[in-house]
Amino acid sequence: MTSAADIWDQLAALPRPTLGELFSAVRDGGEGADEPGGADRVAMLSGRIALDEGGILFDWSKTHLDRAVIARFEQLAEAMDFASLRAKLFAGEVVNPTEGRAADHATLRGTGEGAKVEEAMALIDRMGMLVEAIHQGALGEIEHLIHIGIGGSALGPALGVDALGRDLSYCDVHVVSNIDGVALEAAFAKCDPAKTLIAVASKTFTTIETMTNAASALKWLGDNGVSDPGGRVIALTANPEGAVEWGVDETRILPFQESVGGRYSIWSSIGFPIAMAVGMDDFRAMLAGAKAVDEHFRDTDGAANLVLRAAFADLYYTRVRGCQTRAVFAYDERLGLFPDYLQQLEMESNGKRVTADMQPVDGPTAPITWGGVGTDAQHAVFQLLHQGTHLVPVDFIASIAPGDELDPAHHRILLMNCFAQGAALMAGKQGADPARNYPGDRPSATILCDDLDAAALGALIAFHEHRVFASAVLMGINPFDQFGVELGKQMAKAIEQGGEAFDASTEGLLAAAGLG
Amino acid sequence: MTSAADIWDQLAALPRPTLGELFSAVRDGGEGADEPGGADRVAMLSGRIALDEGGILFDWSKTHLDRAVIARFEQLAEAMDFASLRAKLFAGEVVNPTEGRAADHATLRGTGEGAKVEEAMALIDRMGMLVEAIHQGALGEIEHLIHIGIGGSALGPALGVDALGRDLSYCDVHVVSNIDGVALEAAFAKCDPAKTLIAVASKTFTTIETMTNAASALKWLGDNGVSDPGGRVIALTANPEGAVEWGVDETRILPFQESVGGRYSIWSSIGFPIAMAVGMDDFRAMLAGAKAVDEHFRDTDGAANLVLRAAFADLYYTRVRGCQTRAVFAYDERLGLFPDYLQQLEMESNGKRVTADMQPVDGPTAPITWGGVGTDAQHAVFQLLHQGTHLVPVDFIASIAPGDELDPAHHRILLMNCFAQGAALMAGKQGADPARNYPGDRPSATILCDDLDAAALGALIAFHEHRVFASAVLMGINPFDQFGVELGKQMAKAIEQGGEAFDASTEGLLAAAGLG
Repeated sequence: MTSAADIWDQLAALPRPTLGELFSAVRDGGEGADEPGGADRVAMLSGRIALDEGGILFDWSKTHLDRAVIARFEQLAEAMDFASLRAKLFAGEVVNPTEGRAADHATLRGTGEGAKVEEAMALIDRMGMLVEAIHQGALGEIEHLIHIGIGGSALGPALGVDALGRDLSYCDVHVVSNIDGVALEAAFAKCDPAKTLIAVASKTFTTIETMTNAASALKWLGDNGVSDPGGRVIALTANPEGAVEWGVDETRILPFQESVGGRYSIWSSIGFPIAMAVGMDDFRAMLAGAKAVDEHFRDTDGAANLVLRAAFADLYYTRVRGCQTRAVFAYDERLGLFPDYLQQLEMESNGKRVTADMQPVDGPTAPITWGGVGTDAQHAVFQLLHQGTHLVPVDFIASIAPGDELDPAHHRILLMNCFAQGAALMAGKQGADPARNYPGDRPSATILCDDLDAAALGALIAFHEHRVFASAVLMGINPFDQFGVELGKQMAKAIEQGGEAFDASTEGLLAAAGLG
Repeated sequence: MTSAADIWDQLAALPRPTLGELFSAVRDGGEGADEPGGADRVAMLSGRIALDEGGILFDWSKTHLDRAVIARFEQLAEAMDFASLRAKLFAGEVVNPTEGRAADHATLRGTGEGAKVEEAMALIDRMGMLVEAIHQGALGEIEHLIHIGIGGSALGPALGVDALGRDLSYCDVHVVSNIDGVALEAAFAKCDPAKTLIAVASKTFTTIETMTNAASALKWLGDNGVSDPGGRVIALTANPEGAVEWGVDETRILPFQESVGGRYSIWSSIGFPIAMAVGMDDFRAMLAGAKAVDEHFRDTDGAANLVLRAAFADLYYTRVRGCQTRAVFAYDERLGLFPDYLQQLEMESNGKRVTADMQPVDGPTAPITWGGVGTDAQHAVFQLLHQGTHLVPVDFIASIAPGDELDPAHHRILLMNCFAQGAALMAGKQGADPARNYPGDRPSATILCDDLDAAALGALIAFHEHRVFASAVLMGINPFDQFGVELGKQMAKAIEQGGEAFDASTEGLLAAAGLG
């Protein structure tokens, strides 16, 4: 079998036809001689994942993937033992070697069999019972939920509530993450303490931001006439003992598994605020959408696997074309937080420099993932995409069904702009005026949902989870640890404790702020 | 005089001491022999801009700038005629040659002399009178303002209101930009139509998103019992005739100058919603803060100019160290929208590929500007900053005075984390376990405000405006046009009009969405 290093060398040496050449029916000879162009190319590089209702189209034809590139990546998948690692992931075996853990987030979607899935389903059922009891008034009249968590304990809930909770919401949810008290005060200003629950979400139940914010939230309840603030707390944690010690009654603790990573925890009890806002039926629909992607990813081989195909393109741009970033633009206001969500998912998972077997990586790892919403971003950052000097592969995401009930012109213009941008990036335009020239040949992929409902959101998230996993496997890294965040925490602690000397700049800043 | 190309060659060839070496007192011989270390280095690379009350500290010592690098950039500034272009900017001469325009945003801060400044001051006064009249009830009881604009007509207002309008707000402001009707519906849900004004902000008064949203907003007012919806519109535009034609009464049109670019328009009548929320006194304080930076930037030469120094570092990382991105993390919840604001400012201004005299650029232009708020970002993307393979220069922004009134622990922990991250990125850490190793030597700059008030916000924004201008001059490009956004608009229009054939992928997407 060809080694990974050799395959990367071959990839780097392959011809680099432009997108225009790839789309034209007539191709040069050589390996690409039988390369399909036009609609045949679109057929080759598009695919659909069906959901219970409707589905999602994934069109990767406007990337530089061609048969020669794909063939190398399929060899790379073999060389990196992709099928076996994927099997381990779904079997609940250890795929996070530095922490000796499985990565069991898919079990929460009911993917797999055996005790782990049964345990996950029981945890979901437990959450469902509490959510429904609260909706039925078991904790009194509840109109507001302040959800306190940070990182993976905040980004998923915030995304889910924002994407799905706009039209009908059982409960007004405010996600507070920042240690900056300004964030918590903004939530206080919008909630009636007499009708407010506090969710405290922390995998370890020790996160300093979350525990500090939780203490201040309880104080606020107490200061505002709530006689038993502790009785208003729901704990979402993989450390239920810690929550009990902190004073949360066991009946209001919703545990999740230690083997579910923070940035993969939206499916677990960390998703409680989503269920509070949109109800358990929609929450379960989100799980079902994710499960459909699990099954596609688990059961499809080679580039026909739409997730793996996306990872091929991602790695091609990062490692062969030298792209340090990739961007995602959701042409849908409801997905305004999706780029932030993906940013954590990809950068925290794959922003690594050693392989799973502790060797230095042999190339760049995760790109900087960034983006925004369309059409807003067209008026802010697309200048650089069209005429800047950095190549940025772009994903567009849109929904055929509108999310609004205004004049249909709104949604029609939205979609036309989305498609026009992908076309313009690829086509470019040459004319007499250099300042008005566009080089074109800039790649994009388009993810088009029939409707952006709960199932589609679940599917979109799971697609990206597996895309990140696939990239990690092809790079030989462990996507499930995150030791890179520890040093900063240690140094913050050292500052707090005092007595340690830092560099002259840091000492100066501490002194300027009266913390020296 | 040495040519710019030669200077870039010299910069690339200079020794590359690590940050640790730069901070150590003892240095190798050669050009850097008398390089100051430790606190002397911090003194050399820190500076302060005073505001009417307090000021802002700019610490660039944890970047790789040293005397040799700075000397080359000072030569580059001479070679690129920086002083002369800066003088043209402030004199209101043409600095946007492709459009034959000046860039007069600084006149709105009262920087400069003569007719242009008088005109600008008169426009501000006119806005002030209308704002105060509305606050005094001239248009009835007004509690809500739906501000409709996109790009530069949205990002500044949204930032200003979010940063300054949290504690005391005369008026509840909702900024709506996206053509997606979901955005406008979210604003409707929070406003009482009987007490709502609509601001329509568009430089040309033709922007399709803004005019479509404005029409739907008027329909909403009419459908909800407002007898004269048009009487509720305030127009913010450089095309007052267009606003009159559209039906806005002249008394409710706040014009601004054609020579103020959209992404530089927060100081003009586009800032109306900020003044509506926080009052004219704070709006004028914001202008005064910006003016303090104008004067520092205009009157200081070489690397003592803190703005120019920042541009030196930016260009060093982009062009010498190959960084395709730079990141900004505001350790302050109130600056949550600042990274988005900077993203447009930098990427739309400097994401170019031809020089001001229409030659291909001789190196990479604007990096992808991204970021977030601390401490949130520590739990999301800092993994990559510490252990990823891409070098990302980082700016930290913080305020010594807290924005909240909770337990002081909140703000203390916030600041300690901010400073700890800069220290950790630079120091790194080596140990036995490769997965827990940090390479260090990763640069950051820190901008520390005494207090994040209106003046400081104005100063921060003006600092970045001039930083982008300085970078543009040093690269020889025109930061004030944005032709890169035109092609996508043309293609969207062509799709709407029909009859044109696009690539097979775009045709397929249009067909899938029922738009083919």
